Amino acid sequence: MGQVSLHGKHLLGLQNVSAEEIRLILDVAKKMKKVVLSDDKKMPFLKGKSIVNLFMEPSTRTRSSFELAGKYLGADVINITPSGSSMGKGESFRDTLLTLAYMGTDAIVMRHSAEGAPLYATKAVDPIIINAGDGAHEHPTQALLDMYSILEKKESIEGLKIVILGDIMHSRVARSSIYGLTKMGADVHLAGPRTMVYPEFAKMGVTVHHDVREAVADADVVNVLRIQLERIHSALYPTNREYARIFGINQDVLKLAKDDVMVMHPGPMNRGLEIAPDVAYSDQSVIQEQVRNGVAIRMAVLYLTIHGGDGSELAY
Amino acid sequence: MGQVSLHGKHLLGLQNVSAEEIRLILDVAKKMKKVVLSDDKKMPFLKGKSIVNLFMEPSTRTRSSFELAGKYLGADVINITPSGSSMGKGESFRDTLLTLAYMGTDAIVMRHSAEGAPLYATKAVDPIIINAGDGAHEHPTQALLDMYSILEKKESIEGLKIVILGDIMHSRVARSSIYGLTKMGADVHLAGPRTMVYPEFAKMGVTVHHDVREAVADADVVNVLRIQLERIHSALYPTNREYARIFGINQDVLKLAKDDVMVMHPGPMNRGLEIAPDVAYSDQSVIQEQVRNGVAIRMAVLYLTIHGGDGSELAY
Amino acid sequence: MGQVSLHGKHLLGLQNVSAEEIRLILDVAKKMKKVVLSDDKKMPFLKGKSIVNLFMEPSTRTRSSFELAGKYLGADVINITPSGSSMGKGESFRDTLLTLAYMGTDAIVMRHSAEGAPLYATKAVDPIIINAGDGAHEHPTQALLDMYSILEKKESIEGLKIVILGDIMHSRVARSSIYGLTKMGADVHLAGPRTMVYPEFAKMGVTVHHDVREAVADADVVNVLRIQLERIHSALYPTNREYARIFGINQDVLKLAKDDVMVMHPGPMNRGLEIAPDVAYSDQSVIQEQVRNGVAIRMAVLYLTIHGGDGSELAY
Repeated sequence: MGQVSLHGKHLLGLQNVSAEEIRLILDVAKKMKKVVLSDDKKMPFLKGKSIVNLFMEPSTRTRSSFELAGKYLGADVINITPSGSSMGKGESFRDTLLTLAYMGTDAIVMRHSAEGAPLYATKAVDPIIINAGDGAHEHPTQALLDMYSILEKKESIEGLKIVILGDIMHSRVARSSIYGLTKMGADVHLAGPRTMVYPEFAKMGVTVHHDVREAVADADVVNVLRIQLERIHSALYPTNREYARIFGINQDVLKLAKDDVMVMHPGPMNRGLEIAPDVAYSDQSVIQEQVRNGVAIRMAVLYLTIHGGDGSELAY
Repeated sequence: MGQVSLHGKHLLGLQNVSAEEIRLILDVAKKMKKVVLSDDKKMPFLKGKSIVNLFMEPSTRTRSSFELAGKYLGADVINITPSGSSMGKGESFRDTLLTLAYMGTDAIVMRHSAEGAPLYATKAVDPIIINAGDGAHEHPTQALLDMYSILEKKESIEGLKIVILGDIMHSRVARSSIYGLTKMGADVHLAGPRTMVYPEFAKMGVTVHHDVREAVADADVVNVLRIQLERIHSALYPTNREYARIFGINQDVLKLAKDDVMVMHPGPMNRGLEIAPDVAYSDQSVIQEQVRNGVAIRMAVLYLTIHGGDGSELAY
Repeated sequence: MGQVSLHGKHLLGLQNVSAEEIRLILDVAKKMKKVVLSDDKKMPFLKGKSIVNLFMEPSTRTRSSFELAGKYLGADVINITPSGSSMGKGESFRDTLLTLAYMGTDAIVMRHSAEGAPLYATKAVDPIIINAGDGAHEHPTQALLDMYSILEKKESIEGLKIVILGDIMHSRVARSSIYGLTKMGADVHLAGPRTMVYPEFAKMGVTVHHDVREAVADADVVNVLRIQLERIHSALYPTNREYARIFGINQDVLKLAKDDVMVMHPGPMNRGLEIAPDVAYSDQSVIQEQVRNGVAIRMAVLYLTIHGGDGSELAY
């Protein structure tokens, strides 16, 4: 893989990342996971580098995951969140970016409610921009860690029937997963209420269902998305109870999938809504492992974009 | 002390910690204090380890103390607080713990409003759990630093008359101190209004008073607890003025204690309420030294639980 | 410069700092800027030291700048902000300071809404106090980075016509700049509405204008201050529109200045109010470079006060 390099590149989404680049990230993440599982997680390839975690929306898991990934690699990491910052002082987003960029920042990890904010950032400033979720657009490291988690259980993504369930319309995780998984040759199926899964998605090379049982039949992987509670109170959507009954994943539905089906969820889960507790904590679930893989993926992404190389120097 | 080890153990409270284990912590803290007082506070025994500070209730002093303790030891420390996190997104506490645990976390330092939350955490996840205060239950590192502070002034805790004053009912500090001090052979006395100190406390091996002067008579140590202002506005309790007049510690009351009485307070103080300023900043007060000892105790606890050993390798 | 030393000294403002001390800071900052611009920003002269960032008012830029400066120098840095802290628990400011000081803290970087809070802190506790802005009093590192930015473009500050525009009355940046620039021999001019620039300022050795065009004529440097939007809604002040039209800096006004005029702004900017976008992002503007210089200045200040020396040991 010597010829592929992500050095100095942004990671805005998986739409414009090649299968070869995805493979490089997954490959390096495999080594990084050994670091995460080891007794000494310090691997200071990013010593002397600085990373700003700019989270304009609340987040525990993604922010912490990037923060630890950066610190395990020896970088200086600072967190910027809307509360306690001067972002309420009327400064433009561009000026905030310029300010952060000019502090000697090597990379900005960014979560923003507006689709395209990370792309905008790449036009405005020099540091490497890593998209940690922009509106309903993309969340590439989540899709990468999902692919990584699949590859820990399955030999290849190619040809697998992978079902993504839930509010696809508003899901940046779904969009990134669709781009990534189809690139890797998966047979991707979407399922959810008609107001959450439009027929237009078929143009992305996937199969659209509105019947969960039909979608899950013979599936290798079932990826259950979080239902955003604030959204489901709209009259356009089913109620919590209706959603759980008609679209929720429980052991009864899961029986229709392959025997060795994997269940994934990006978290945080609404247990009893989109996913039943007996599924979430079953042997089929890799939900906790996804979290660990998330740190490994983010280490790989930060390493490859900021430090460069193909990971062959890594001891593991 | 070679045979005692806290390696890999949780610290949930002092109820189930032996006197020998307490002595080990106090012994190692003595060396750690030299680090805190030195010109170079970096002692990277926890390099490559990661600690999550999970503070579900606001805190400056305890959170900062643990954060600095971890950093002085070379660990990567991240803070999780309710504001700015996804804990408002309806995720269960178990799932939050699982998420934090699976990021390669070696220890979770936890403050929670619910009694037993740290115990629950030990059942839910693998990392070492350090209780930084759970409801009105325990706050073991505070009690340990109090014991350490006493031992800086007195040869032994055994036989000392130690008075704890205030809202014992709602105080996790009081509970941990009672467990710890009685184990070390102290003669523990409690004092406060009848609605704050129930007669049932006598079953814990302490003497209960409702007259502060009687309690303080011939005391070696007076530990004044913080009165929680939000509580004192209840009709069950005296008003601020009444409390200060009847139960507050001032020089007049303190004259009844031994000449070399020590005054302690876990902070933050309501000066003029539970403690008069002339007492708080007197020579009898070790309140500031308690803060410094807090960092040393937390360094000792993190070192002994995460790194192991008995501290004999420490240079100091 | 061997005889000047800032070791162990506080930095409360530029009023009581000598021209020689200012020169030392600017000189060391020049080396520090090379660190900020380099591939490896780690220069661990402050390893084993700890810095508390105590920001009682919201801030992104100054807080981040100090945090990164401290981390680039290898110090352990912790942030204390009002939200999520126990500062709401009624603790006195003195007790908060004592608590932070006794954790083995080498320096406290402090922002506070009350003028004189940092001076008070120097009386209350031992650590080095660095003022990061106190009310309308001083903000010395901002003034220092402004001077540094000028010296990157001009050979000397002496004799330059430097105009400071805006709400001088309420500006800590203006006060620090006036003290610093007049010490360095600049010809300082102030301009703004009569309610924002009192004639009394003339006593500080500056020239007062209420006509921006008059002030800007033949200027070498124009420093545009932020208009605090919450203030401008008062009846005492012009409206946004009036301010922009009468006192705002645009290319039309700027033509009156010298050809090589420099435009500065401490940020965050209200573009279109005190400064027009075509000026903010023009070649005359050094606004972004000021941010970078801010990190260099703060590194220099932390290095000189905590570590000592005159910077001659620095490789660069």
